[in-house]
Amino acid sequence: MELSFLQYNIVYNLFSLTIAVMFASGVYFLATSGRIAERYRPAMYVSALIVFVAGYHYLRIFQSWDAAFELSGAAGEMSRSANYTAAADHVFNEAYRYADWMLTVPLLIVELYIVTKARDASKSARSSMTALILATIGMLATGYIGETYTADTGGLTMRFVWGTISSVFFAYIVFRLYSDVSSAQDYLPGKASLLAGNTKLLLLFTWGFYPIVYCFPFLGLTGATSFVAVQSGYTIADIAAKAGYGLLIHHIARERTIHEGGVVSDAAAAAEGRSRSTGTATADGGTSPAT
Amino acid sequence: MELSFLQYNIVYNLFSLTIAVMFASGVYFLATSGRIAERYRPAMYVSALIVFVAGYHYLRIFQSWDAAFELSGAAGEMSRSANYTAAADHVFNEAYRYADWMLTVPLLIVELYIVTKARDASKSARSSMTALILATIGMLATGYIGETYTADTGGLTMRFVWGTISSVFFAYIVFRLYSDVSSAQDYLPGKASLLAGNTKLLLLFTWGFYPIVYCFPFLGLTGATSFVAVQSGYTIADIAAKAGYGLLIHHIARERTIHEGGVVSDAAAAAEGRSRSTGTATADGGTSPAT
Repeated sequence: MELSFLQYNIVYNLFSLTIAVMFASGVYFLATSGRIAERYRPAMYVSALIVFVAGYHYLRIFQSWDAAFELSGAAGEMSRSANYTAAADHVFNEAYRYADWMLTVPLLIVELYIVTKARDASKSARSSMTALILATIGMLATGYIGETYTADTGGLTMRFVWGTISSVFFAYIVFRLYSDVSSAQDYLPGKASLLAGNTKLLLLFTWGFYPIVYCFPFLGLTGATSFVAVQSGYTIADIAAKAGYGLLIHHIARERTIHEGGVVSDAAAAAEGRSRSTGTATADGGTSPAT
Repeated sequence: MELSFLQYNIVYNLFSLTIAVMFASGVYFLATSGRIAERYRPAMYVSALIVFVAGYHYLRIFQSWDAAFELSGAAGEMSRSANYTAAADHVFNEAYRYADWMLTVPLLIVELYIVTKARDASKSARSSMTALILATIGMLATGYIGETYTADTGGLTMRFVWGTISSVFFAYIVFRLYSDVSSAQDYLPGKASLLAGNTKLLLLFTWGFYPIVYCFPFLGLTGATSFVAVQSGYTIADIAAKAGYGLLIHHIARERTIHEGGVVSDAAAAAEGRSRSTGTATADGGTSPAT
């Protein structure tokens, strides 16, 4: 496969930008976790894990992209006339994406359940989460098997069969998430409920992109242009579905924190306890309080 | 392009120094965030994100510079007579700067609005910020398109057209930031108002550098000397506009924190309000107030 200077560099620079986005948002999620009530704080740690895992995989993807193509033709300072051809000793490794999704997609679901859970977290929410996590593993494993059959190897039938099985899991996951978040919206306070609605839309639009890309070979979309479109599309979807999603989750958690009386640290809780008992003591005994 | 030993190494060492500055200031912004009131603290996190993202990009820029030139001629221990010529297999990647700006410039604006906001943050400030962030995307996207047309490719007319569109966004951003910070100076307490004035000047001088550099090819400034001047100039401007700017923002936030009674967490403030009312109750009852 031959890529033009521009095609190669769009993907190259997008991969690099994604590394920066993932690691920076991880630092942000950790740094701001103190603003979130302890009850929802684990969601911030999970957010950070997700983007750190994705950041690691984009480091590998970037490296693999760099090694898989070689500059050929008239090279020179910012030369627009140079092309990039496939290297003889390295093949671009698509499997990094599946490894990444296998780790991050279950965590995305966990995160969502943490911030949308009811005050009296029910058993059914927990079993819903377990079922969904198992479904993501089924979706990704069968999707990956199908992905290894490409138009080049003439395995489009097998790609279709495995892709269909994967899609069943996908449809189940999206439907279940959608309906669970919808019912959570009933008890979420005003703005948090609104943000949960945005999260549903984000899930639909970003996750919906993956099966569309999967279908490209059926539509005869192969070659350099489609390859560049697929890589860019997956990458933009990953930024939205991980860093953007994490930011929405953070805002939901922050709204619930404010709504439930702010972050109560150990020290503040102790001070509160003291002022309360002080008040009681003086009222009772009519004497000066300690402190 | 051929660079002298000195030319190559000025840029090389400046890039390396910048990596150190960016990561070190990021650690500083995080470490000192506890000295800032919770209301302004997110600005410290955003400062840290900006310099970490820039630090990452300077790591990449450094690496790209290293790979794009080869030592030729009389080499030897610290040889001043050697030259550096463009490598055959790697082109210096200017796009890292645009990827960096695309992420950091919107964050620089967010940061400024966090520390200059009024006590009763108005809706107009938020819409002002959103408009500015959209304008930065317009500025950078059109600027990048123009940047790809160089004197070498004979595309100076296209560079001029895209550069002009980008400049319209640029002028709007600088004007709007300038006037918004000016009106914030009215309610900022003494020293914080002074520091906000310094921030306006810093913005003007560092941001003003970028369009000037962009115009170099129109002035016939091409070749090694101009290339080295551009790289050094962008780098020094980045240090001032990110690490230096972050330090100013930190000082403004610190002044406001002191002025508003030091670091008080949400919960502590709530507890304080409660203990104060407790104090009143005891005062009514004829006893000493709490604390």
